[in-house]
Amino acid sequence: MSLQKILIAGTWRDADSTSTFQSENPATETALPDEYPVSSWADCDAALDFADAAFREMRVMDGAKIADFLEAMATEIESRKDELVEMANLETALPKAPRLADVELPRTTGQLRLGASAAREGAWRKPVIDEAAGIRSCYGPLGPVAVFGPNNFPFAFGSASGGDFAAAIAAGNPVIAKANSSHPGTTRIFAECAQKAAESTGMPAGIVQLIYRTSHFDGEKLVSDPRIAATGYTGSRHAGLALKHAADAAGKQIFLELSSVNPVVFLPGSIEERGEALAEEFAGSCLMGAGQFCTNPGMVLLVAGEKTDAFVADVAKRFAEAPIGTLLSKSVAKSLVENLGTLKKAGAEVLTGNSAGGGNGYSAANTLLRVSGEQFIADPETMQTEAFGNASLIVVAKDVDEVLAVIEALEGNLTGCVYSDTAGSDDAAYDKIEPSLRQKVGRLLNDKMPTGVAVSPAMNHGGPYPATAHPGHTAVGIPASLTRFAALHSYDNVRPHRLPAILRD
Amino acid sequence: MSLQKILIAGTWRDADSTSTFQSENPATETALPDEYPVSSWADCDAALDFADAAFREMRVMDGAKIADFLEAMATEIESRKDELVEMANLETALPKAPRLADVELPRTTGQLRLGASAAREGAWRKPVIDEAAGIRSCYGPLGPVAVFGPNNFPFAFGSASGGDFAAAIAAGNPVIAKANSSHPGTTRIFAECAQKAAESTGMPAGIVQLIYRTSHFDGEKLVSDPRIAATGYTGSRHAGLALKHAADAAGKQIFLELSSVNPVVFLPGSIEERGEALAEEFAGSCLMGAGQFCTNPGMVLLVAGEKTDAFVADVAKRFAEAPIGTLLSKSVAKSLVENLGTLKKAGAEVLTGNSAGGGNGYSAANTLLRVSGEQFIADPETMQTEAFGNASLIVVAKDVDEVLAVIEALEGNLTGCVYSDTAGSDDAAYDKIEPSLRQKVGRLLNDKMPTGVAVSPAMNHGGPYPATAHPGHTAVGIPASLTRFAALHSYDNVRPHRLPAILRD
Repeated sequence: MSLQKILIAGTWRDADSTSTFQSENPATETALPDEYPVSSWADCDAALDFADAAFREMRVMDGAKIADFLEAMATEIESRKDELVEMANLETALPKAPRLADVELPRTTGQLRLGASAAREGAWRKPVIDEAAGIRSCYGPLGPVAVFGPNNFPFAFGSASGGDFAAAIAAGNPVIAKANSSHPGTTRIFAECAQKAAESTGMPAGIVQLIYRTSHFDGEKLVSDPRIAATGYTGSRHAGLALKHAADAAGKQIFLELSSVNPVVFLPGSIEERGEALAEEFAGSCLMGAGQFCTNPGMVLLVAGEKTDAFVADVAKRFAEAPIGTLLSKSVAKSLVENLGTLKKAGAEVLTGNSAGGGNGYSAANTLLRVSGEQFIADPETMQTEAFGNASLIVVAKDVDEVLAVIEALEGNLTGCVYSDTAGSDDAAYDKIEPSLRQKVGRLLNDKMPTGVAVSPAMNHGGPYPATAHPGHTAVGIPASLTRFAALHSYDNVRPHRLPAILRD
Repeated sequence: MSLQKILIAGTWRDADSTSTFQSENPATETALPDEYPVSSWADCDAALDFADAAFREMRVMDGAKIADFLEAMATEIESRKDELVEMANLETALPKAPRLADVELPRTTGQLRLGASAAREGAWRKPVIDEAAGIRSCYGPLGPVAVFGPNNFPFAFGSASGGDFAAAIAAGNPVIAKANSSHPGTTRIFAECAQKAAESTGMPAGIVQLIYRTSHFDGEKLVSDPRIAATGYTGSRHAGLALKHAADAAGKQIFLELSSVNPVVFLPGSIEERGEALAEEFAGSCLMGAGQFCTNPGMVLLVAGEKTDAFVADVAKRFAEAPIGTLLSKSVAKSLVENLGTLKKAGAEVLTGNSAGGGNGYSAANTLLRVSGEQFIADPETMQTEAFGNASLIVVAKDVDEVLAVIEALEGNLTGCVYSDTAGSDDAAYDKIEPSLRQKVGRLLNDKMPTGVAVSPAMNHGGPYPATAHPGHTAVGIPASLTRFAALHSYDNVRPHRLPAILRD
């Protein structure tokens, strides 16, 4: 057992730790050997100082140099692929292949390289030249960014490797990575890759720093510190809102991705037309990776009828028969059971599942619950309790008007899907519900499950509060995601040779 | 004396008022005849309901129809120009011409027409089509917007006529206008113009509604209500931050323009080369309109020396000799004297002025204060007290390094200016201070005073906190300003005929 070091100013050094923690292998429910420090404020303070110093170099740095760093880091990651996959599998129980090795790792290096292209090419800076008025503008770097990554994507959303990280660096900002406590070892390897790339490309010490954990108090102090410019956070609503409160009060930017139940509406004609195929598609999407996706379809909206009952029975059977996946951690398993309990207590009928265990390590039975539209509308807040994991809530409305009423009662979500028949019998219902659903979600889908989040310039991995805190910004999709970590810089009558290169004639 | 009605759902109706207020003619210090209601929550509640209803129509409305409304409103404003100028002059003492009639009114109708062009043409929605992934995205309307306008631009930043109003409507959102208490009559005429345009272009009742004043408590409740999507606020820091706190806690968007001292650096060579011309330029800019601009140069940074002393003496003389303008209200006059007192108490030397009165009606002497760089750095928070009005603080640093240290101690500002000589002797100093100043301001100027805010697509009328709360957004400059009141809408695999027209092939 060894106590791991934190990365401050380009050096791996002993933390000023107040205590330590270990991650667990969720498949075996046993602690992994490495010990990680819980940092005191002194560590945060040091990281902030060096991030501030790094930013003084980066804010005047050519985008091409930043691109070199991101590309070198992607290459370094590839050279340590086996180690990363091994560690992440131990820490999260996510399958080595295809998930970690063949999907998430290439996505991660792909994002870093897209970030590199954006930094080199510069279109993300949206240069505007108004020759007549003598005014020019572009986006520029914002300042040091703190990144808090989630438990469910140790690579692609990792604090020192993922989408927020790539966007913050590509926009010219240093990053202070706060590892997710469920996979500190994976995050450490990424920080090692970043440090090696920083050395080989001549980047300032402090471009990427890593701490593993802090007290909640120090976390809130970090995101509101004068030396920090912005925070990217993906995780639980409770912890995220505490950070948001602190950052808001200090006038600091914070971009959060919180909870989302991702409603899926199957209009009657679609069930009539292809109910069995849709039951298979839905069950597959909801149970994939034990349902631990931000965009997992955690709520299904149907119109009452015989075909609907048959569809629901089919889905329940599939849930009951499907293998039970391992959950990411003890706390995910605990929360899932608790949240299902909340829904049951509020009146949801258990169609299948709703018991702890049953799979390898931390797990819970694949669970399907059912309420009526009337029940949902009577207590929408409770009914939208996110049960993160392999579970979904079926809401059966009495008619399309009640479907609409349920949608009106929804909070903001990342995604919303509508399935309809191909002949057009659902079109009137679609037209009735679409404007309301459109307002409630960042990404609207037709005839497709929400669980795939393509790295596309047209992606919006975002949505109205409380899915995120900024309905105009996306966490996925380069270059759009860079704008979160950028300031709008206007130049008025500035002498030509003093303009950033991108704004010169 | 008559009690004015509020505009709710297209009807001028009696307010549910808790009390009343009158505006004053600041030039005569006498109350104007009309009485205005302070609305209870019932009025806000009604406005919110009808704004919500209006939005249900507007969110699926063609941009061309919104453009028709904005253009009809601009035309209506022009037909009531004399009345508007008369009323605004009575309520604010701003000169009828050129200021109100020839500058601010055309700017206002120009902004409305630019908003109309943006709504009709649609480029502000930034359509992105990723055919390979089957994903498309664009910005769409966000929902009802509350607008709180400032005291100093009754037309161009007015709650029912100005930049935030034009941007919110052009992006497809209804507006609840909260009049500034110093010019309710002017705001009422604009709301009448809006209502007439709404009727002639077939807009929903509730597209523009007007209340005059609420309690602070109800104001905070309004910006955080579930039916509101966003708020645009321009005004004092204290009131703005109270609204921000309420909106943030509810996860609502709020775009604020708060205080700014707008530092102007005169590098030594510029003073050497053209000191007298610069003294004239600075005094003119600082005293114009009694200094009541968001971008008024309230702070000047100089390097100690004989020429600097001569420059400061020249400016002081100009301040002493210039006519004293009328301030916008009793409270502006009171705050100005108080804030100058704060600076004096903190050690600032009074070079000229610092007394109440002296002009027509509410006024204060043109005031110039002086501190050393060392004094500034010792207490930067107090030294950045904004003295809104015809006053400025001269900071004389011992050398360029101390100028840089002063800049490092600055809060976020809307603008920052640097004057340098033409021969290049200031270039090294410019290069030394620019990266820090760039980080602190939204708009960086060379050799130009900040008081003109052109309506240019390259404008940033914004800046880091506490100048605003969003360093990536601007309040002036169409179409950029529309994005504040928009949501990013992604469409994934959505059937072609269901896409918004702007996203179809």
